[in-house]
Amino acid sequence: MHNQVNERIGQVRNLLKSLSLDALIIPTADPHLSEYIDPHYAVRQWLSGFTGSTGNLIIATTGSSLFTDSRYWVQAQRQLSETEVTLTKVEGSFIDAECVWLKEHLSKGSKVGVYGAYISDTEATSLKEKLNKAEIILEILEQDPIDSLWTNRPPLTFHPIFEHKVSPRTTEEKLSLLKPLVVKSGAKKLLLSSLEDIAWLSNLRGKDLPGTPVFYSYGIFDVDAGLTLFINEKALPIPLGLSLVLRNINFQNYEDLPKYLENLANEKILYSPGTTNALVTSKLKKYGCPIKIENPVELLRAQKSITEIQLFRKAMEKDGVALCKFFCWLDENKNSGQLTERSVADKLFEFRKQQPGFLYPSFATISAFGANAALPHYQPDEEKPVKIQGNGFLLIDSGAQFPEGTTDITRTVLVGEASEQMKEDYTAVLRANICLAKTIFPNLIPSQALDAIARAPIWQNFVNYGHGTGHGVGFFLNVHEGPQRISYPRATDEADGIISNATRMRAGMVTSNEPGIYREGQWGIRIENLLANIPSKCTAFGEFLKFETLTLCPIELDSVNLKRLQADEINWINAYHMRVWEVLSPKLGNDVKTLDWLKKKTKPIC
Amino acid sequence: MHNQVNERIGQVRNLLKSLSLDALIIPTADPHLSEYIDPHYAVRQWLSGFTGSTGNLIIATTGSSLFTDSRYWVQAQRQLSETEVTLTKVEGSFIDAECVWLKEHLSKGSKVGVYGAYISDTEATSLKEKLNKAEIILEILEQDPIDSLWTNRPPLTFHPIFEHKVSPRTTEEKLSLLKPLVVKSGAKKLLLSSLEDIAWLSNLRGKDLPGTPVFYSYGIFDVDAGLTLFINEKALPIPLGLSLVLRNINFQNYEDLPKYLENLANEKILYSPGTTNALVTSKLKKYGCPIKIENPVELLRAQKSITEIQLFRKAMEKDGVALCKFFCWLDENKNSGQLTERSVADKLFEFRKQQPGFLYPSFATISAFGANAALPHYQPDEEKPVKIQGNGFLLIDSGAQFPEGTTDITRTVLVGEASEQMKEDYTAVLRANICLAKTIFPNLIPSQALDAIARAPIWQNFVNYGHGTGHGVGFFLNVHEGPQRISYPRATDEADGIISNATRMRAGMVTSNEPGIYREGQWGIRIENLLANIPSKCTAFGEFLKFETLTLCPIELDSVNLKRLQADEINWINAYHMRVWEVLSPKLGNDVKTLDWLKKKTKPIC
Repeated sequence: MHNQVNERIGQVRNLLKSLSLDALIIPTADPHLSEYIDPHYAVRQWLSGFTGSTGNLIIATTGSSLFTDSRYWVQAQRQLSETEVTLTKVEGSFIDAECVWLKEHLSKGSKVGVYGAYISDTEATSLKEKLNKAEIILEILEQDPIDSLWTNRPPLTFHPIFEHKVSPRTTEEKLSLLKPLVVKSGAKKLLLSSLEDIAWLSNLRGKDLPGTPVFYSYGIFDVDAGLTLFINEKALPIPLGLSLVLRNINFQNYEDLPKYLENLANEKILYSPGTTNALVTSKLKKYGCPIKIENPVELLRAQKSITEIQLFRKAMEKDGVALCKFFCWLDENKNSGQLTERSVADKLFEFRKQQPGFLYPSFATISAFGANAALPHYQPDEEKPVKIQGNGFLLIDSGAQFPEGTTDITRTVLVGEASEQMKEDYTAVLRANICLAKTIFPNLIPSQALDAIARAPIWQNFVNYGHGTGHGVGFFLNVHEGPQRISYPRATDEADGIISNATRMRAGMVTSNEPGIYREGQWGIRIENLLANIPSKCTAFGEFLKFETLTLCPIELDSVNLKRLQADEINWINAYHMRVWEVLSPKLGNDVKTLDWLKKKTKPIC
Repeated sequence: MHNQVNERIGQVRNLLKSLSLDALIIPTADPHLSEYIDPHYAVRQWLSGFTGSTGNLIIATTGSSLFTDSRYWVQAQRQLSETEVTLTKVEGSFIDAECVWLKEHLSKGSKVGVYGAYISDTEATSLKEKLNKAEIILEILEQDPIDSLWTNRPPLTFHPIFEHKVSPRTTEEKLSLLKPLVVKSGAKKLLLSSLEDIAWLSNLRGKDLPGTPVFYSYGIFDVDAGLTLFINEKALPIPLGLSLVLRNINFQNYEDLPKYLENLANEKILYSPGTTNALVTSKLKKYGCPIKIENPVELLRAQKSITEIQLFRKAMEKDGVALCKFFCWLDENKNSGQLTERSVADKLFEFRKQQPGFLYPSFATISAFGANAALPHYQPDEEKPVKIQGNGFLLIDSGAQFPEGTTDITRTVLVGEASEQMKEDYTAVLRANICLAKTIFPNLIPSQALDAIARAPIWQNFVNYGHGTGHGVGFFLNVHEGPQRISYPRATDEADGIISNATRMRAGMVTSNEPGIYREGQWGIRIENLLANIPSKCTAFGEFLKFETLTLCPIELDSVNLKRLQADEINWINAYHMRVWEVLSPKLGNDVKTLDWLKKKTKPIC
C-alpha cells in the first residue's frame, strides 16, 4: 500500500507537468459538498491511503501533505507512515493551513489546481484571494485530473429514489414558504445544489450517500414554473415519476444541468455560495446573472412543524425500544470480558434493524472503551479489535434513520468500577446536560448564547470540552444540519465569530445536547439527547421557548455522585425517567427481561 | 423656549440655503466622540430643547426630527411638544433610522451636511454609503455651521491637567506594550484621538468632561520618537510640564494637530476609525497614508495589572464606606414620606464627597422610585420632584471617580411592603447576579458567551431584560469601556452580531454584573456589582479565570423569597456579606449607627 501511495503520487506529478501546474489540491468532497461521501468520490483516500472522513491532500512538485483535524492525527500518522506524505495538523481553518503550506513549498508565480466540483464557491473565492496575496495562482479545473489515473474507480451508483410518504407537509406548502424569500431577493429562480434541500423540498429520499438518505440531484425552483429536479431518471421508479408529474414537479436528467445553465440567457438566478460548487458557479457566472443568498431552504427545513415533531416522537419510541433492548443486553454482558468495541456496535445495529422503517444508521457508530473514549470522534479500529475489560467507561454514540425522524444519542456506560474522579466527571457532564435541557429561553435568541449554560457546571470543575454542545438534526435527513448550533468561538479560533440572524432559535428546531469530558489517556464521557424547541409561554417580555428532550432512553446513574446534584436536577431526572418508562414500557410487549431492566433504570432517585 | 426652538431651526434653514444643503445632521458628540460631552458641544440641546444624553437632530428644509432611543422617548415627547421637531423612536441603529427619515423627506440628488468633527470615520463611511444608495449626497463640513448662530455659546473650558499619581504602570511600560502592536501593523506612527486612551497612556487626568476624568487632547505615538500630546498648554501646570519632559513626553498645542498632520508627507499612520472623527480622518487621507486599526489601546487598558486591581479594591473600600453610611441613613428615613428621588441622590453625593480622593460621580445618579424604576436609565426629573412614599422599589444606580478606580453600583431598596410578584422578581434578579458572579470560565472565552448564565434564572420565570448584563469599567476613566461586554445580539437587532477577538475575557478586566427586571408601569429591579477577572487555575483543559466581586456593599435581602435560593447561592451570599463586614467594619471607625446597620445587613442567612 505504501509504495502504491508514493507511486500514485508520482503519477500525479507527471499529470501536474502536463497540466502546467505546480500543485494539486484534493479535497474530500462530492459535487454537492455533502458531509458523507460515496466511495466513488474517495479520491483523497485512494491517493493517500488515509481513511478518515475529513482531510485534504495537497500534492506539489516539491512535496505532499495531508491536512486533517485533531480527531484523526493518530490515525493519519499511522496510515501515512512509510509514504512521502507528511501530516499537517489543522487546528483552525483548513484553507489557512493549506495556504501556509503552499506558500512554503511554492515560489511566486506558481499555479495550484483544484477540481471545481470538489470545492464550494465560498471556499474557492477565499482560497484564491489568500493565494493571490502570495502571488500564487489558483486554477479551477473543469475535469477531475485523477479520474484518468484511477482505473478501477468505483462507479457512482444511483439507488432507487423513494417517496418520503409520512412527510406531513407537501412540496407545494414548502415551495409557498420558499417563494417569498426568492422574490424578496430580486430573482425568479433559485438553484438548489444541496442534496438535503432537494430531498426536503421534493419529499423524496434516496440511499446514494452513507448516513443521509438523499439522492444525487440538482434543482431549480422557478417562482412561475415551479420545481425542476435534475436526477438520474433510471433511479426514479416509473410510478413515482408519474406521481411527480401529477405533483407538478418536472424532472430532467442529472447530467443535463450544465445544458440548462447554458440557456440562462443572463437571467438572474439565486445561489448559495456555501453549498454550490465552483464549477457550477462558474457556469452561472458565464451564462446567468447569479445573486448570492444565504441558503434559504436550510432555515425552513430546520423549523419542523408540529406534526413533524410528533413524528420525531414516534421515531424516538422505535429507537428507544431498540436502545433499551441493547443496553439491557449490554448490562448483562459488559463485564464478561468477551465483548469488543466492534461487537457492541454490531449488536446495537442488530436491535435497530428490527424496528419497522429503519433505513440505516445515521452515521458510523462510535463505540469507544477506556482511553479510546477520550477521542470524541473515535471509531472502532477495523484492524485491531479492542476488548472491553477492566474498569472504564464505554461510550456509545449512534443514530438511526427512520422515516419519522433522524436520531442521535450518546450514553456512557460504566464497566467495572468507577474512581472518584470518574464519578466527578460523569456527574458534571450529567449536570451540564440537565442544565441545558431545562432551560427556558426567549424566542429568536442566538443559539450560540445557550452554550455557556451547559458548560458552566463543567467549567466549575476547571474542565472543558473541545466540541460544540449541540448541532441541528434533520427530519429523515442529515444528522448534522444548520443553521442553529449551540457553541461559541473557541480560544484557538483565530477568526471572529459571527452570530447571523439565521442561527437564532425558532420553534420546531431539533438540536443535540451533548456535553462531555475527555481526559487524554484515561476516559471519555458524553451524554447526548436530542432537544426540540417548543413554544412555552408568551408574556409581556415576549415569547419564550422550552426544550423537550425527544430522546427516550434511561440515563446511566451508576457513576453519579448524587450529593453533587441540585434538587431541581434530581426532579428533572425523575420526571424524564418517568416519561421514558411510561412511553416505552407498553412498546416492549412481553420482553420481560428488558421490561425489568427498564423498570430498574427508571426508578426515582432520592 | 418652544418658540425659540422653532426660531433657531428657522435660522438653520437660512444657513442651509447659503450652504446649498437640503438637510443638516446634528449629532450629540464632541471631536473625540466621548460618551459624556461638555456644554460647549451641546449643540443639539441648544437647538431642540431636548436635554437627554443621547439623541441626534436632523433639520431639513422639509421638516425636522429628533432621533433617540427608548430611554428618552417620554422625556423627548414632552420637551419637543409645541415645537416643530418630531420624535423618531430609534430601536436599532441610529444611522439606519436617520437614512429612512432622510429618504422620506428628501428627493434624489439632495445634499445632507454633517460637521465632520461630530461623527466618526466609521459612521461617516456607513452613512455616506447608505445615503448614496438613495442618491443622496453626504457632505462632511469643515466648520460647525451652528457656531455662527449660537452667540452666547459656552466657551470650551480646559481644566488643569493633573498626574494620575497612584498609577502603578509608567507611560514607558504602557508604550512598550503598544509598540509591538503598532510595528506589527506596518507603520511607525499611531494617531490617538480617544481621550481615555491618551489619559491612560500618559498617566494624566483632567476634568474637562462630566463623569470621565480626561482632558481635551490628541496624541501621536511614534515608535521611534515616543509620545507627543496635543494639549492646551495653559491647562498644564508648569511643574507637571517639566516632569513630562523628563518622562520623555513631548507636547504641542491642542490646535496644532492639523498642522502636524499636514506635514505627514505621505507617511503611514495608524488610526482607529471608530474613535477618530471624519475631519481628522480627511486630513490623514490628504496628507498621510492612513491605515485602519481596531483600537489597540482599548484592549491594553481593559487588562488591569495586579496592582491596579489591588487599587480598585481600595476604591471599593472608600465607596463601600460611603455607601454603607448612605444606605443606613436611607433605611432610617425611607418610610418617612419626606424623601424625593432627587434628595436621595443628593444625600448619596454628600457621603461620597467625604471620601478622600473623590473627584466626582462617574455618571449622573439614577434614583428611581416605583414605576420610574422600570425605565432602566431614568434620571430624577429636575422639574417635578418625585416623592418616595407608599409601597415600591427604590432603584439607585450610581458611581464615583477615585484615583484608585472607578465605581458603579446598583441596589434596589424596598420601601413599604413587597407583593409576592415583587419578591419573585427580586429573587430572580439576585439569583442571576449570583449565578454570574460565581462562574468559573476559560481564559479567552468570548465575553458575550457568559450572558446566558446570568439570564437563565430570569428566563425561567418567562422574564427578560432589554439591556446588556455587563460593560467594562475604566481605571479612573470612563465607567463604560470596551472591548469586553456581557451581552448577546437581541431579537430586535437586525444586524448580525460579531464576536471579535478583542472581546475575549482576559485576566484583569473589570466588568459590571447588572441583571434586572423591569415591569412597565409597576417596578424596576437591578442589582449591580463590579467583577474583576482573576486567574484561578491552570489544568489539562487550559487556564481558567474566576470573578472577584469588587463592589463592597450589603445586598438587600428584605425582598428575597429565601425558598427559591439554591444552597450554593445562599453560601455565596453569606461569604460575600462576611467579606463586606470584615473589610468595611474596621473603616467605619466609631460610626456606631452604621456599624450596627452593617452588622445586621451582613448577618448570615439560613
